This record gives sequence, structure tokens and C-alpha cells, in this order.
Amino acid sequence: MVSTNCSGTNAFRYGTMKDWVINLTIVLADGQIIKTRRRPRKTSAGYNLTSLFVGAEGTLGIVTEVTLKLAVIPKETGVAVVSFASIADAASAASKLIRSGISLAAIELMDDVQMRIINRHGSEAVRKIQWDENPSLFLKFSGPTKEGVDGDISQVRNIIESNNPQKYFFANNKDEESSLWAARKEALWTMTSLKPEGHTIWSTDVAVPISRLAEIVDISKKEGKELGIFASVVGHVGDGNFHEALMYDAKDPALHASVEKAIHRMMDRALEMEGTVSGEHAIGMGKMHCLVNELGPDTIHTMKLVKQALDPKWIMNPGKVFTVPEDSNVSPAPRHMGF
Amino acid sequence: MVSTNCSGTNAFRYGTMKDWVINLTIVLADGQIIKTRRRPRKTSAGYNLTSLFVGAEGTLGIVTEVTLKLAVIPKETGVAVVSFASIADAASAASKLIRSGISLAAIELMDDVQMRIINRHGSEAVRKIQWDENPSLFLKFSGPTKEGVDGDISQVRNIIESNNPQKYFFANNKDEESSLWAARKEALWTMTSLKPEGHTIWSTDVAVPISRLAEIVDISKKEGKELGIFASVVGHVGDGNFHEALMYDAKDPALHASVEKAIHRMMDRALEMEGTVSGEHAIGMGKMHCLVNELGPDTIHTMKLVKQALDPKWIMNPGKVFTVPEDSNVSPAPRHMGF
Repeated sequence: MVSTNCSGTNAFRYGTMKDWVINLTIVLADGQIIKTRRRPRKTSAGYNLTSLFVGAEGTLGIVTEVTLKLAVIPKETGVAVVSFASIADAASAASKLIRSGISLAAIELMDDVQMRIINRHGSEAVRKIQWDENPSLFLKFSGPTKEGVDGDISQVRNIIESNNPQKYFFANNKDEESSLWAARKEALWTMTSLKPEGHTIWSTDVAVPISRLAEIVDISKKEGKELGIFASVVGHVGDGNFHEALMYDAKDPALHASVEKAIHRMMDRALEMEGTVSGEHAIGMGKMHCLVNELGPDTIHTMKLVKQALDPKWIMNPGKVFTVPEDSNVSPAPRHMGF
Repeated sequence: MVSTNCSGTNAFRYGTMKDWVINLTIVLADGQIIKTRRRPRKTSAGYNLTSLFVGAEGTLGIVTEVTLKLAVIPKETGVAVVSFASIADAASAASKLIRSGISLAAIELMDDVQMRIINRHGSEAVRKIQWDENPSLFLKFSGPTKEGVDGDISQVRNIIESNNPQKYFFANNKDEESSLWAARKEALWTMTSLKPEGHTIWSTDVAVPISRLAEIVDISKKEGKELGIFASVVGHVGDGNFHEALMYDAKDPALHASVEKAIHRMMDRALEMEGTVSGEHAIGMGKMHCLVNELGPDTIHTMKLVKQALDPKWIMNPGKVFTVPEDSNVSPAPRHMGF
């Protein structure tokens, strides 16, 4: 979690992993062990090594200890699901909710395909509900008092009213909250369970400024449909971050090539919209070339200078984030070399 | 603000500068210009260079552009001031409030000395109020609805009741909110205006885990009193961060030496409590030796490796954060050299 700076449905309210790490113990490439900080909640003493190691995918050192901040568990919670006529309506409603300042605990988007799947293949508790098979927002509320949470829910309802809401589902108690939210939680596994023998799922994410989310989701869904394969979208819409899953017969090389091209077009589109090729799953090996497109050779070069300084022999998780240089020695000049 | 990772009374709710920077444009030591990221709200693509440059005090490059996140301005606000019999009572109340999960917008501590000053030398609006000259918590509330804010205030009152509150001051309208909060805002300038000709104010901050705040404030105040000089404390108590101001005749070298010793003892005490020597004003020149005490030679060495990699000639804001090495070339070995 620390090394990929990961996050999920709670990131809208609470931020990502980097926001919760107070200090790290790191084993460096030369065997030296350092602690990035002591234990204050707030500090501006020296370079922020903590944030440098969070998300570095183990390429700068091995994380062996983590000190985390704790959050107060909210006393009162609420869950609502609202379906919309289109992704654009859902995204526009999400954008209004975010700008309202109402303290939502989570705001998630599931597309029509996902809603159809949970109706038919969800767990028993989830299938008890007759879901509307339209793009839906899953909303989580929380706060210290019931009155506050109820007030948030009714405000949300007022705001959404002008965005063609189709159907509302409100939880009246903790059990109903669990059942409603289970539909979102099960999305990935329900889909995985449908995968035919020999098929594969290519699942990946990008993030864009929130104002561009509806557009990129729409285009990505359209391209998925044109491939004639199962294509579905689940989104952390409050962060402008979404996952696309493409399920297809991996033994068909022409189809695989088409899927790969579609994924790359989605990455390029995210970058054209000033977004990122990885919202929450880091770079690894699969997105190394996308990272260069995202940041450009000079920024990549700066990152490599840091890598080179802390791991001159390129022994820490080699071949992730960056390709290992042939002589394992990145020279600081000349710039604009071919990465 | 970016280069010192600064913050103030809003940090309890909103975090510090690092939490609001989406990307930076940086001029590097060799003249190259890089952008640390594109513009997604969330990303885990590559090293977090943004956080590396935030708080680096210009020693890794010059910040020329900043892209910031925006926050929704809360529709409803509230302000309350509560005085307590002792710093310990105030700090314990603060700790309970933080653990309650009530969404406070700010929680600040002013000591008896500060309260006396604003009663006598505050602005006209501030002097209209008859302040209780005891350690006081200044509380700011905010939210999307008046009912929510009122609910928060009454909950806070219930929680505080068991901590010997002396006197409550509640704002009934925006004007009264401004007057109450003005007392906190004016603290520094009111104190500065009292400084006699030839005297100096040594003002500095540390931060500790919140559970240790009352103890360190108490000891620091006691030591200040023993010096027989003006000594006062203002604290961002929600972050375990506080400022001590010592006012004295700088022409008295023995007194100056005693003040310096007291400040150093406060730094050492903060470190014994697993805190930091700088909560929000970075290191500069004055706290370089404290930084070594805080992080130890190996962590400092790791920071210097990064510095050396990005600025091999040590030309960026030289002599801040670290002393410039004599040969301007920090060798990666041997470790445990005398910093």
C-alpha cells in the first residue's frame, strides 16, 4: 500500500496513502537503515523523504516499518444509491455534489454494465434489491450526529434533482447500508467470477481533472463496445479516477492487439486532458512508456537522478518504474537522451 | 509558502501546504525547467517530486509556478472561545475534542500572557470584549448548514464541561465571529507592538505528538518565567504545534545566552517527545544543528545524496537546511561522518 501510494473508495474524503504516513523505516540499497522522520503530526524539518518513498514502488529502498495517522471512526453513517439516464448526468451530479461542500464520505460511479451484473450475479443480499440498470452513483455519508448525516442526505437529494435521477435507494439501517454498499464492493469479484475459461481481464485505471471525467468515460465505453467484448467502468468519481475492465479471449492475437491499442488510446486521452496514466496502482512494468509520455524526458531524468543517487547499482526492484540503464549508470548529461 | 511547507490555524482541518499542491514548475540547478506532474487530483505515477520540492527551502530548485487544489468555502461558520483554569485543562479538552470526530475548522491555544495582552493592547474591536485572562481555546466551526454548525457547537460544549471551563464566549453573528477570531489573529502583532526599543523577540516553534503538548508547553513557560523576561505561548494545539515568543534586551549577552539555552532545551525536549524542531517554518540557518539531532546522520546523509544529485555544485540557496560541504561534493561513503 505504501509503495504504490494506493487508495480506494475512501480517498475522496480521506486522501490516499501518502496522506496517512507519518514516518517510514527504510532499508537502503547499501544496507543502511534510516527513519524518515520522528512522530509529529506536522513538520517542516528537512526534505520530505517520507513522501519520496511512498509510491516509489520499492525502487529507492525497502519499507520495513510504517507509522500511520489514525482517523476518528464516524459515529453515524448513511448510504444512498442514485441511478441516472446517462454517464454525463451522473458525472454532472457528482461534480455539483463535490462543489457543494457537503461532506461526503465516498462518491462512486458504476456503469450500466456493472449494474446489470450485480442484478444477475451479485451475492444474495445484493440480489434482493431490484437495481436500476443505469449508470449509478454510490454515496456514503458520515459524521458525528444523525441529524447532520440526515441533513447531508436531504441536501444531496435537492442538488441531484435537476440531473434526471431515475431511481433512489436509501438505507434505513446499518444492514441496508451494508447491502447497498456491498454492490459496489462486489463489483470486481462478481465480474471476475463471470470470466469464461481461457479469457482474460485487462483492468487498468487513469485519473483526469474531474471536469473531464464524463467525457473520457463515455469515449472509453464506446471504444470498448466497438471491440465487441465485455467492457465496464467503475469510477472513484470524486477523484476523477476510474477503472476500465476489458474481458476477452486472450488466445486471439488480433483481438489482444486491438484491446492493447484501445488501452493505449485511453492513456493518451487521459494525458491530453492533463490527467495521469495511473491514479492508484503505480507504474510497475506495464506503464513505463506511458510514464515517459506523461511527464516528459526532463522530469523522468530528474527522477532517475534521485534513483541513481540512492541506488547507484540499480538493485532495488529493478525494471520497475524505469528501465534499467544498460550500463546501470545514468549520466546526468546530456539531456533529451532517448528514454 | 511552498518552499517552507508552511501552515497556520487552518492546518488542523485542511492540512499544510504539501496537501494542496498538485504540481510545480521548477528551475533546476543546471537551468533545466521541469513540471513535477500534470493536473490530476490523484496520481501514483512515478516519484512524488512535488512533495520533494515542497519544503525543500529552494535548495533543490527554484519554484516558478504552482498548481493548487481548491477547497469549497464553507457556507456556515461559527467561533467560540473558552478559558480554562490551566494549560493542562485546555490541552486535555483539546485532545477530547480532536478524538470526538467533530469537524472543527480550527483549534488554537493562547496562554494567560497572551490573553492579558489582548485585553490591554488589542484593537478596539478586540478590547470591547472583557477577556478572561486564563489559557483559552479558540475554536472555529464550519459546515454546509447552520443546523450542523450549531450541533457541533453544542456537542463541543458538552465535551468541554468536564474540563473546568472558566468562561465561554460565543459569536452570535458574523461581526462577533470576526471580533472573537481577531484576538487570535492579532496575537503576534499586539505582542510585537509592545516590544521596547532595543529589545528583540525570539519566536520559534516545535511540534510534538498531541498527547505530549500540555507537558512541553508547561515546562517551556516555566523556563521562560525563570528567565525573568516576557515569555508567551500560542499554539496550533490541534496539530501538537506551538510557538514560543521570548522578548528580551538583546544587548545583554548573558541574557541572550540564557535565552538561547532555553530555546535549545525546548528543541531537545520536543525531540525526546518524538516531535520535530520545526512545525511550520522549516530549517533555514538557525535550526541546521537541530535537524541533525532530529533525524540523525544517516537520514541527513540520504537527504544530502538527493541534494547532491540535483544540485552537484551546491548553488541553490546555499547554506540553508545543510551546511555546504567544504569541497562541495558529498561523498556517498563513509557513513557517520561528522555533519
